[in-house]
Amino acid sequence: MAFVRQSWYVAAWADEIKPGEKLARTLLGEPVLLYRGAESGQVAALEDRCCHRGLPLSHGCVRGDQVQCGYHGLVFDARGQCTMVPGQALIPPAAKVKRYVVAEQDHLVWIWMGDEARADAAQIPRHPWHDDPAWEWVKDRYPVAANYQLITDNLMDLTHVGYVHGRTIGGTPQAHSEAETHTVPTDLGVRVERWMMDSVPPPAYTAAAKFNTALVDRWMEIDFFTPATVRIHTGAVDAGSGAREGKREGGFAFIGFNTMTPESETTSHYFWSGANKRQPGAPDGRERLRQSLEVTFGEDKVVVEAQQVSLSRKPEPLGMIASDAGMMRARRLVAARIEQEQKP
Amino acid sequence: MAFVRQSWYVAAWADEIKPGEKLARTLLGEPVLLYRGAESGQVAALEDRCCHRGLPLSHGCVRGDQVQCGYHGLVFDARGQCTMVPGQALIPPAAKVKRYVVAEQDHLVWIWMGDEARADAAQIPRHPWHDDPAWEWVKDRYPVAANYQLITDNLMDLTHVGYVHGRTIGGTPQAHSEAETHTVPTDLGVRVERWMMDSVPPPAYTAAAKFNTALVDRWMEIDFFTPATVRIHTGAVDAGSGAREGKREGGFAFIGFNTMTPESETTSHYFWSGANKRQPGAPDGRERLRQSLEVTFGEDKVVVEAQQVSLSRKPEPLGMIASDAGMMRARRLVAARIEQEQKP
Amino acid sequence: MAFVRQSWYVAAWADEIKPGEKLARTLLGEPVLLYRGAESGQVAALEDRCCHRGLPLSHGCVRGDQVQCGYHGLVFDARGQCTMVPGQALIPPAAKVKRYVVAEQDHLVWIWMGDEARADAAQIPRHPWHDDPAWEWVKDRYPVAANYQLITDNLMDLTHVGYVHGRTIGGTPQAHSEAETHTVPTDLGVRVERWMMDSVPPPAYTAAAKFNTALVDRWMEIDFFTPATVRIHTGAVDAGSGAREGKREGGFAFIGFNTMTPESETTSHYFWSGANKRQPGAPDGRERLRQSLEVTFGEDKVVVEAQQVSLSRKPEPLGMIASDAGMMRARRLVAARIEQEQKP
Repeated sequence: MAFVRQSWYVAAWADEIKPGEKLARTLLGEPVLLYRGAESGQVAALEDRCCHRGLPLSHGCVRGDQVQCGYHGLVFDARGQCTMVPGQALIPPAAKVKRYVVAEQDHLVWIWMGDEARADAAQIPRHPWHDDPAWEWVKDRYPVAANYQLITDNLMDLTHVGYVHGRTIGGTPQAHSEAETHTVPTDLGVRVERWMMDSVPPPAYTAAAKFNTALVDRWMEIDFFTPATVRIHTGAVDAGSGAREGKREGGFAFIGFNTMTPESETTSHYFWSGANKRQPGAPDGRERLRQSLEVTFGEDKVVVEAQQVSLSRKPEPLGMIASDAGMMRARRLVAARIEQEQKP
Repeated sequence: MAFVRQSWYVAAWADEIKPGEKLARTLLGEPVLLYRGAESGQVAALEDRCCHRGLPLSHGCVRGDQVQCGYHGLVFDARGQCTMVPGQALIPPAAKVKRYVVAEQDHLVWIWMGDEARADAAQIPRHPWHDDPAWEWVKDRYPVAANYQLITDNLMDLTHVGYVHGRTIGGTPQAHSEAETHTVPTDLGVRVERWMMDSVPPPAYTAAAKFNTALVDRWMEIDFFTPATVRIHTGAVDAGSGAREGKREGGFAFIGFNTMTPESETTSHYFWSGANKRQPGAPDGRERLRQSLEVTFGEDKVVVEAQQVSLSRKPEPLGMIASDAGMMRARRLVAARIEQEQKP
Repeated sequence: MAFVRQSWYVAAWADEIKPGEKLARTLLGEPVLLYRGAESGQVAALEDRCCHRGLPLSHGCVRGDQVQCGYHGLVFDARGQCTMVPGQALIPPAAKVKRYVVAEQDHLVWIWMGDEARADAAQIPRHPWHDDPAWEWVKDRYPVAANYQLITDNLMDLTHVGYVHGRTIGGTPQAHSEAETHTVPTDLGVRVERWMMDSVPPPAYTAAAKFNTALVDRWMEIDFFTPATVRIHTGAVDAGSGAREGKREGGFAFIGFNTMTPESETTSHYFWSGANKRQPGAPDGRERLRQSLEVTFGEDKVVVEAQQVSLSRKPEPLGMIASDAGMMRARRLVAARIEQEQKP
């Protein structure tokens, strides 16, 4: 499977793994056991396959900061080293399982499945909104039966909103297609900016925020971080109040975090969160936000899974239209990284 | 997949596709979108895969006589030509999807998936009984997990009736095996004729029709139309009244229409109808006819699906017995057509 | 599929096939029809595939000591020879299906799927406990989604008892790991002997039998019969009463019979029985025995099926620990037999 390997991916939401508990998940085609030490509280990640008879270690138990295989009782530490073989004093030097470097940050557990020496936690995209009291947020993980890049495509080209989400957040398809759109390179990927100046605010916006003008200036900033993370910043303020120059106080704002970790070539773990800027004096809006995002991402899931079936049957050729620019840029960045990694 | 391609196949019953509606179906291994224009009322057939990002067009909507993709809104006409790309004025010349020629006739939608230039609707087997008020008929489509030729085999060799349908239309197996049988070539295929003169009428016959003699002259005419249609004409009249010379007034008569459209090498769409000659003054017999045919074809489905499992495991060798003559003739006609099409 | 073929395997429990009845089962990758003649009472085994059109004969009927195909009525005798073709007097010489030699013994139907000339019923491992009134026993067959050798492994290395069966028959893992263990070759395979002298009897033992001492001498004898049968003899008597020298009267004793017949490379039929020595004056203990074994073998099934998934994904490498000695010996015996059979 051709994935970017020298990269951080999200393995789990931090709260999916409680102290002393374990979680089995297939990532980049490899079975991974994630567990959080009962004493250290640290998350560790090991190949989910005992080196003795192959039973997944996830059939065993967390013992302190180690795991014990559920078949013949071998014990492994967080580095994957076997520390105990029942019935014998000597531990064979080869008795170890692969471990993966992990980093916990912004409520997420990131995993590095490439060369350990190259793992640098400073390269992980930050998402400070998960700890900012000015924002209220919800999150989930969806198993999606589609290649991870089909989800990236979906997020990078928001002209689909009018067609896929017509019943929810869509609005008029034409407004989206005709938005002013720019695609600009960034340090870690590419950004698509779209502006809809002097436009009618969608119902979801007026329901959530108070505007002082009938029309609003509306933006969508879509940041792609190679290979599989997309941050979406959308919002609107009173028309003419200077949003484009950076004045975005008041009005409505949303920050979406999306990251897709390949499970296999044709299945993915889609981790997402959505944050709304808190409105002064407004009640807790998280439940409404969750419901809205679940419907929306559910509609996207149907589309990308149908695409996967169709493309598995016949991958090529596909055509391009103008609105594909951001998506194509993101795909080229991923392809370049894979090519670079496969060089001898 | 080796199918006869230069041929008409049934894609759907005409009433499966209402004006402005669509139907997705895999035919000869290809995903096909069938839809009926809301204005023209004409059925069209397109490759069920948008040329932009591969989403099946069946996830979209019929718009007048065109279809719009449900992802980014591209619109295609009945010839498969893209007529609109949201957000851009110019339509790329390559923006089109494959279309298939269709013909609606005798309540059936036929499709031609070979070279368009060779499509000649005059070659479609006719079935006028579907519009003849002297007959009452019922129909259905069964998905069958077996190669289409196994269904043809089943229909061409009715000696199976005594063994597979012993509980329903069977009668004594021996009577069927010893019937006088002839196999004769026809313009479009082959015909098997079987005669059981001076025979005891089966209960289903005496229940449905009035005979003036204790014994009847009974016939079965099985017409195979290459590559995958079988018409069965069975019936009986008073013994000695001249059925063999063509006098078939009165008595009992049944016309079965069967056509098998390959979905894949090992799965098929089995379209069937059954028509009984109306008996003077008799009440509507269609519900009883439907129930009887559903049981019978259900029994056949069990057999051919079990055969498929067995033959997928080990295709060869198989043996021949005397009653295979018609079936073998039909298979040779299909094989010859495939060979001819594959010649350079 | 690389199986030992010149060998007896269990096809069924004898009472699974009543006179005049049939049973379809895939053994060593081949579809087999087992049936018991209505007149002879003898079990016969034929390839489950009619030589005419491939329908499994198990879709047909037992007729006396023969079977009739459910499609066109061909009849086959217990040697696989066709004896009747409806509608024709002459039976083609090639009209026959493969038959397999079977032998019924100790309540089991054994099948020989190798060269017929080499089938020698004297080589079948005996299990007289199935007919010994001094023992009460229960049995079953489990379909297991794992290669048969993973089940053998499980049975040959009982150090897993403390980890897999901790909630049931386990006891302290350490006691098992530190038992005195010997591995000795036998005529038909290999035996593992384990002794736990002067040990605390497990609750299951004291519940089932009366001991006159606080500590007991406990044994486990595990006999592997190449390629896929394991007999386990466990028990305990009063400490110091001479168990090791063969005096095993009184106390507790259990005989387990386990045989694994490959269905495919990755699925197996696991036939097992368990027998307890009857305790004088005790009520029928079979229901309790059945419940206990079902829980235990259910726990093993979970483990070996998880192992199969893991090893299908990545078969090698695996490591060895001290307690693997018996298992490894058994695997080497099987590998040697397969190698020998594949020599030209």
